[in-house]
Amino acid sequence: MSTLSEVILGAPAGEYVDREVDIAFAHDGTGVLAREALREMGVERLPHPDRLRLVFDHIVPANTGTTATLQAELREYARVAGIALSDAGGGICHQVMSEGVVRPGMIVVGADSHTCTLGAFGAFATGVGATDMAAIWASGETWFRVPETIALDLSGQLSGAAEPKDLALACVAELGMEGATYRALEFVGDGAATISMDGRLTLSNMAVETGAKTGIFYADAATVRYLAGHGVTASPQVPEDCRYERTVAIDLDEIVPLVAVPHRVDTVREAEEVAGTHLDQVFVGTCTNGRYEDLARFARIVRGKKVAVRTLVIPASRSVLARAIAAGVLAEIVEAGCVVGSPGCGPCLGAHAGVLGEGEVCLSTANRNFKNRMGVGGEIYLSSVATAAASALAGEITVPEVA
Amino acid sequence: MSTLSEVILGAPAGEYVDREVDIAFAHDGTGVLAREALREMGVERLPHPDRLRLVFDHIVPANTGTTATLQAELREYARVAGIALSDAGGGICHQVMSEGVVRPGMIVVGADSHTCTLGAFGAFATGVGATDMAAIWASGETWFRVPETIALDLSGQLSGAAEPKDLALACVAELGMEGATYRALEFVGDGAATISMDGRLTLSNMAVETGAKTGIFYADAATVRYLAGHGVTASPQVPEDCRYERTVAIDLDEIVPLVAVPHRVDTVREAEEVAGTHLDQVFVGTCTNGRYEDLARFARIVRGKKVAVRTLVIPASRSVLARAIAAGVLAEIVEAGCVVGSPGCGPCLGAHAGVLGEGEVCLSTANRNFKNRMGVGGEIYLSSVATAAASALAGEITVPEVA
Repeated sequence: MSTLSEVILGAPAGEYVDREVDIAFAHDGTGVLAREALREMGVERLPHPDRLRLVFDHIVPANTGTTATLQAELREYARVAGIALSDAGGGICHQVMSEGVVRPGMIVVGADSHTCTLGAFGAFATGVGATDMAAIWASGETWFRVPETIALDLSGQLSGAAEPKDLALACVAELGMEGATYRALEFVGDGAATISMDGRLTLSNMAVETGAKTGIFYADAATVRYLAGHGVTASPQVPEDCRYERTVAIDLDEIVPLVAVPHRVDTVREAEEVAGTHLDQVFVGTCTNGRYEDLARFARIVRGKKVAVRTLVIPASRSVLARAIAAGVLAEIVEAGCVVGSPGCGPCLGAHAGVLGEGEVCLSTANRNFKNRMGVGGEIYLSSVATAAASALAGEITVPEVA
Repeated sequence: MSTLSEVILGAPAGEYVDREVDIAFAHDGTGVLAREALREMGVERLPHPDRLRLVFDHIVPANTGTTATLQAELREYARVAGIALSDAGGGICHQVMSEGVVRPGMIVVGADSHTCTLGAFGAFATGVGATDMAAIWASGETWFRVPETIALDLSGQLSGAAEPKDLALACVAELGMEGATYRALEFVGDGAATISMDGRLTLSNMAVETGAKTGIFYADAATVRYLAGHGVTASPQVPEDCRYERTVAIDLDEIVPLVAVPHRVDTVREAEEVAGTHLDQVFVGTCTNGRYEDLARFARIVRGKKVAVRTLVIPASRSVLARAIAAGVLAEIVEAGCVVGSPGCGPCLGAHAGVLGEGEVCLSTANRNFKNRMGVGGEIYLSSVATAAASALAGEITVPEVA
C-alpha cells in the first residue's frame, strides 16, 4: 500500500526511478538559463515540445532593456521550438499551470521552487534547477528519489478569521524550515475536504518552505469540479492505507491568524502578538495568495473604506483578474485606494514593481520573508489575506475580525 | 486686446513679470531634486504648502530599493511640509491635476515638461526645472517672459478614424520641433469647441513638442461641464480680438491617421505609408492618451478579439481606471489579452514596466519617440489610440477603420 507520491512515481520510498514527465515548465528567469544550457549541450530538437511550457511572470513587463532583450530571445526560441508561451500579463507560472494544464496523477517539474503548488491537484509536482530543466527538455525524462511522506492529518474546519494561509504558516512552524527536507507532504483527513481548491493551492505552495519536494492533496470532488471549470475531465483519487514516515495531527478549529516575522518563514507568531507593528507597504498577491478567492476576501474587508498605507494587489493571472473585474471585486479594491499591478510575481522577489526601501516594513501574503528579499534593508512579515486587509486599513499589523 | 497668456499673466508679450503661482507640482523624479535643492538653500518653511502638490507617477511602484528609499524620504517630507501627496497608483501628475485641481485662469507650474497639458483648461501651465521649482516652493512666485502666441485656428470637425492625437501630430509636423520655441499655442476657431476635454488635454499635452511653453484652449461650456463633474465651479473665458504672432489654419476634416516615426516627433507620416511595420509592443497610456475616452475607444476596437502582440494599457489615473472598470471597458481590454499596468507613466520614459529590448519596435500613444527613450536600441512610433488598437490586433502598424 502506497503513498500518493509512491503511486504516481510507481516505486516505494527510497528508490531511484527514471520517469517521463508530463509537464515541464520554466519562467522568464529560469527559462533563459535553461535555453542557454541547451545551447551549451548542443541540443537543437526537443522530443516533446507539447509537454513544455514557458511562462513569463518574474519580471513582466520588462524592467530594463537587458531583461527585454533576454525575453525577446526566449520568446523567439519558444516560437521556433514549438513551446507554448504564456507571455507578460498571463500570470504566475504555477497559477497558469493550475488553470487546466495540470491534472491528477501527473508528474510535473517546474524550474521554480514553488512548483509544489500543483500538488494540490494530486500531481507529483516539484521544482528543479534550470540546468536540470534543460536536461529534462532535451530527454523528456528525469530521475527521482521517491520521497518518504509526512502526513498532515487535518481534522475539523477553519473558523473565525482563519484561512488556509494561517494553516500553511502553522504547518511550516510545526515542521520547521528543514523539517521535511526531501519528504513529500500529504494533506489528509476529513479536514482536507473542507478546504477549497484555492486554499489547497496555498497549502501546497508552502510545502517547500519545510524543505519538502511537494505537498499533495488527493483529488476529490472539489478537484474534479474545479478542473471541470477549466475544461478538464478528472477522477478522484482514492487514498490507500499506507505507511507514513510521520503523521502530524492538526485541528483546523484551533488555527488562528498567524504572522511569520522577519527573517524566517518558520518564525511564526499569533497575529495578536505582533499587532501594532508599523507598516510601509502591504502586498496581496503571489503564487501563495493571488487567486480569486484571495482577492474576493480582500475586497470584502476593504469595501467602502480606504487603505491607510500603500497597498499593492496583484492578481495571480489574467483569468483571476478577469474574474475579479466581472464580480465587482476589482472595483472595490481600486476604490479602496490600492495599486493593482499586472498579473505576475510582482515585487515578491524584489526585482521591480514595489521593491522596499531601506528600513521599510511590508506585510505580504507571499511565502518567503528572507532578509533583503524584497529590497535591501526591508523587513517582510507574512500573513493571510484577511490579516493583510485589516492591516492595510489600519496602517499597522492588525488582527482581522471574524469574517 | 490680449492673448489668453497675456490676460492670465497680466502683461503684453515680451515683458518680464513676477507672479505668484496658483499650483506648483513635482513628481517623484523632480520632487526628489527639488527637495534636495531646498535643503541646499536652507529653506525650511514653505509659504503656501496648500498650493503645492507631489504626485508619484514616474517609477511606481518603486523599481529598486534606491527608488523606494528616495520615495520614502519624499513622502515623509510631504507629510512634514504639509504638501498634498498623490502616492503610487494615484496617476500621472498632469492627469491628477486635471481632475479638479486646475481651473481656468490659473498660473500653474509643474516640474515636468508636459505641464502644458493643463492649458486645456484655459490656465497658463508650463514646465519648469526641479531647481526652479524649489525656488518657487520657497517663495511662492516666479518670473515669466510673457510669450508671443501662435494661433492654431481649427475649422471643421474630426471625422473617420481621426482623433485629437492625429491632430496633435499634424500640429507638431506643421510647426516642427523647434517651431514654437518660447511661444504659447492657442487652439482657437469653431473647430476647437468640437473637441472633448480629453481630446484637448491630448492637444495641449503635445504643445511642448513644438517648443511651446504652453498650449491653451479657452474655457467653454465643455470645460465648465467637465470641471463640474470634478466638483469645481468655473466660468467660460471670452477670447479677445488679439494679435497673434502667427496663425496656422487647420481643417479638421482633412486630418487622417498619422504616425510619428523614429526618432523625431515631427517626422510624421500618414499611417498608411508605414502600414505593415512589424511591432514587438503596443503601449496605450501616458499623459497624452491614457484617459477614459482613450481606453473606451481602444476597448471598442479590440472588443471580442485578441491582440497579436504584447500590448500594455496603462490608465492615466486611479479614477480613469475606476471608470474603465465600472463601464465594462477594462474587462474588454483584459479579455483581449492586454497587460493592464498600474496608473502612472509606465514605460514611457524607459525606467521600468515595459522597457524595450535591443531592436524592438513599439507603437505608443505617448508624446515622444526620441532615440533610446524606452530602452537602448528600441524604436518608437507614435500614433493615436485607434491606430494603436488596430495595430495591436494585427501585430503590425495598421490603419484603423472608420470608427
